[in-house]
Amino acid sequence: MDSAPLYRQLAGHYRQAIAAGTLLPGERMPSIRALMERHDVSLSTALQACREMEAQGLLEARPRSGYFVRPPAPQTTPIAEPSASLPDPAQYVGIHARISAIIARGRRYPDAVNLAGACAPPELYPVEALRQATGRALRRHPNLLGSAVEPDGHPALRAALARQALQARMTLAPEQIAITHGCTEALNLALRAVAGPGDVIAVESPTYYGLLQILESLGMRALEVPCSPQTGLSLEALELAAQTYDNIRAVVVVPNLQNPQGSIMPDANKARLVQWCEARGIALIEDDCFSTLADDDTPLAAAKAWDRSGNVIYCASLHKNLAPGMRLGWIAAGRWQARVEMLKFSQSRPNELLSQIAVAELMASGDVDRHLRRLRARLRHQRHWAAETIAALFPPGTRLSAPQGGMHLWVELPDRLSSEAVFEQALEAGVRVMPGVVFSNSSRFDHCLRINIGAPRSTALERAYRKLAGVVARLSPR
Amino acid sequence: MDSAPLYRQLAGHYRQAIAAGTLLPGERMPSIRALMERHDVSLSTALQACREMEAQGLLEARPRSGYFVRPPAPQTTPIAEPSASLPDPAQYVGIHARISAIIARGRRYPDAVNLAGACAPPELYPVEALRQATGRALRRHPNLLGSAVEPDGHPALRAALARQALQARMTLAPEQIAITHGCTEALNLALRAVAGPGDVIAVESPTYYGLLQILESLGMRALEVPCSPQTGLSLEALELAAQTYDNIRAVVVVPNLQNPQGSIMPDANKARLVQWCEARGIALIEDDCFSTLADDDTPLAAAKAWDRSGNVIYCASLHKNLAPGMRLGWIAAGRWQARVEMLKFSQSRPNELLSQIAVAELMASGDVDRHLRRLRARLRHQRHWAAETIAALFPPGTRLSAPQGGMHLWVELPDRLSSEAVFEQALEAGVRVMPGVVFSNSSRFDHCLRINIGAPRSTALERAYRKLAGVVARLSPR
Repeated sequence: MDSAPLYRQLAGHYRQAIAAGTLLPGERMPSIRALMERHDVSLSTALQACREMEAQGLLEARPRSGYFVRPPAPQTTPIAEPSASLPDPAQYVGIHARISAIIARGRRYPDAVNLAGACAPPELYPVEALRQATGRALRRHPNLLGSAVEPDGHPALRAALARQALQARMTLAPEQIAITHGCTEALNLALRAVAGPGDVIAVESPTYYGLLQILESLGMRALEVPCSPQTGLSLEALELAAQTYDNIRAVVVVPNLQNPQGSIMPDANKARLVQWCEARGIALIEDDCFSTLADDDTPLAAAKAWDRSGNVIYCASLHKNLAPGMRLGWIAAGRWQARVEMLKFSQSRPNELLSQIAVAELMASGDVDRHLRRLRARLRHQRHWAAETIAALFPPGTRLSAPQGGMHLWVELPDRLSSEAVFEQALEAGVRVMPGVVFSNSSRFDHCLRINIGAPRSTALERAYRKLAGVVARLSPR
Repeated sequence: MDSAPLYRQLAGHYRQAIAAGTLLPGERMPSIRALMERHDVSLSTALQACREMEAQGLLEARPRSGYFVRPPAPQTTPIAEPSASLPDPAQYVGIHARISAIIARGRRYPDAVNLAGACAPPELYPVEALRQATGRALRRHPNLLGSAVEPDGHPALRAALARQALQARMTLAPEQIAITHGCTEALNLALRAVAGPGDVIAVESPTYYGLLQILESLGMRALEVPCSPQTGLSLEALELAAQTYDNIRAVVVVPNLQNPQGSIMPDANKARLVQWCEARGIALIEDDCFSTLADDDTPLAAAKAWDRSGNVIYCASLHKNLAPGMRLGWIAAGRWQARVEMLKFSQSRPNELLSQIAVAELMASGDVDRHLRRLRARLRHQRHWAAETIAALFPPGTRLSAPQGGMHLWVELPDRLSSEAVFEQALEAGVRVMPGVVFSNSSRFDHCLRINIGAPRSTALERAYRKLAGVVARLSPR
């Protein structure tokens, strides 16, 4: 017998019908009443099934007409798999200055349409609920702003995060969690806990430029390991790298909705990676800022879910999914927890309490889950539209990632066009993108762009895409 | 003609009278009415003059009786000057673990009367004004908590800090200031900007234990330079150290109200120190968290006031003097400003805005100056009482610092009693102090205690002092 709830079984049934072509894109879904009669289910079950399929992007609701089968995700040319080559020896060339220069240059155009960030606008977040919770915390704790802060974070927030961790299949006690100034500080602390200057750290290629900055500022050396745009870090390439370099101290990985490619590592790979690191005494640092933004409402598992010995350091934040204006991150550092807490104390002291109290209260209510479902649906919608727009406007030969969640698209330009040239000319035209050069110490991604899809569809945004496509076309040799 | 305001001239006149012995301790000050008539001044001028003298510790108000001349600061045996010996070779022994163990042990007694901190209770801070300003910022910026934070800090706060810096005789543009997570993060950034692992950093001896933790966590080596309890860092000893060790990369100093001794470096020494570092290409890092807590309302000058080449990195916070519950620090890093901002971005990203907006508004009003005058007066009062109490209760041979401001007393126990033993037994008796062992890598201060005087006088506090004195007496061999 199927143990899934009835509405899920019902949704599964119709998902198969759509996959099999029994129901075609644009066709009307049976009405709620028809579903109730045909499958002998309650109104609420029929409704829930349709809503689940809507959230999964299979159906769309049209006012006063019911549900219709959505067209499939845009037909774009996917990014190719990487060649299983050895890491590029250019890995040790510092790029901190280059990244900083590009960020600084972008900032000089504050009026440009910003497609370079890793964020979404305030209207996608529960700003009113955050404001009210903050106001309540201020009223309930009249002495808060005058009181020195106790270490290790607010107990209620740590408890709320421990509960949230359960969804990603991690079993953590609140005491195994420390609050940090964002995921950036968490990554700094994780790296400082397990490695020192000169040590080699294996990272994804392409990887988040912020990580390359952190590594360079700590004097550590990034060893880039090729990544699949679908399944993330290549474990074969990692094995090859370990045979070549016997001094890898840690692996830093974003298993869920990797930045910039948007890949999701299959659970089997997560389990293998955890085991592989454990067997070699190499620390595994997991950066998990985006996983709650996956299109599917079924939570993604963290790699740390397979951690049995405390060898995985889990880093995350509430910056992308809940409160961009609060610097709240967290770290569960396994067997390095005491060392991480000591480093946190000596690096920046405990976080202030106000935002912690407010967010803990919000997380204890059901509001956050409701918000996340809405946010996921909106991001999915915006991402599909952005992908369709890019596919329609950019020159032939452009390739596009097809991430199942998150805030980015990863674009490969045709003819190995220089992303830095596109970046420069797009800025002049009033559009800011993140050029591929900042995501690697090598030149492998110089022809790529990371495009943020956080902003809702608008004519201004469409105009920006047209300008960007125009820049690419002008630079294109064809 | 004297250009000072009339009330200051009047206060100056009577200050001289007290200094000359014309008015003796305990004598009644002329009444307000008498002052008005005798000096032909307004009621408000007469009142202001008396209040200024009260704030300076010269007068005390007795209900319904008027102002009386205060007795001079308590007669205690002062701490002796250090011998001008070479730095102790024990300097390189790490004490991070020892400090952490003592902090962790203290935390296990949450109910103990806490004399170990570097803070004062909420009632000494403008909690209501902070709360209201925070509430206003929330209302005025409805999208704040949902918006990603722009780098380098809130312009209005940087402008307010630049204005405040003028009082310490520093001329800084707002853009030369970056906001940090407290002074601790500022010190981390300063050290990371100018030095790397293995580098030698000259520090005061005794010094703030937090600095020793930071240095050890960064793999830097603390070279301890003897300090006068009156005038702070010994420039002669520093010169001697530089002749012995030719690899000093930076000097970290707290010129104003040094932690733990409470010394204030004379301006001539500040100027010499700045010049000395400049001439040798050694960076000078100034930690200035306490200077606005000096008893005298005349602002103390920062060492950076003498900086002409950008060789001084100034670090401070609003944690001790304005808002203990907000993690707001700042750094003006001179010629390392760009590097510090890059490190800040890669270490923890910009601070969140809410507290910055609230504090900027408060600083733009006159409220902060009024608060600081009150805070100084209360701390002075509490410090004098604590010093008198310790002098009366502790065994003969106890020596005491006589700081002219701040939140601490520095106590030398007789017979080189072990401060760690006192710490342990006092904890059991319900009193937490900070033992001298954490303020040096050497054993030079093992017989010292740092006592926080942030809490207002109370019978509970007096009982705690009695218990502490009892522990010292029991451990004393006499």
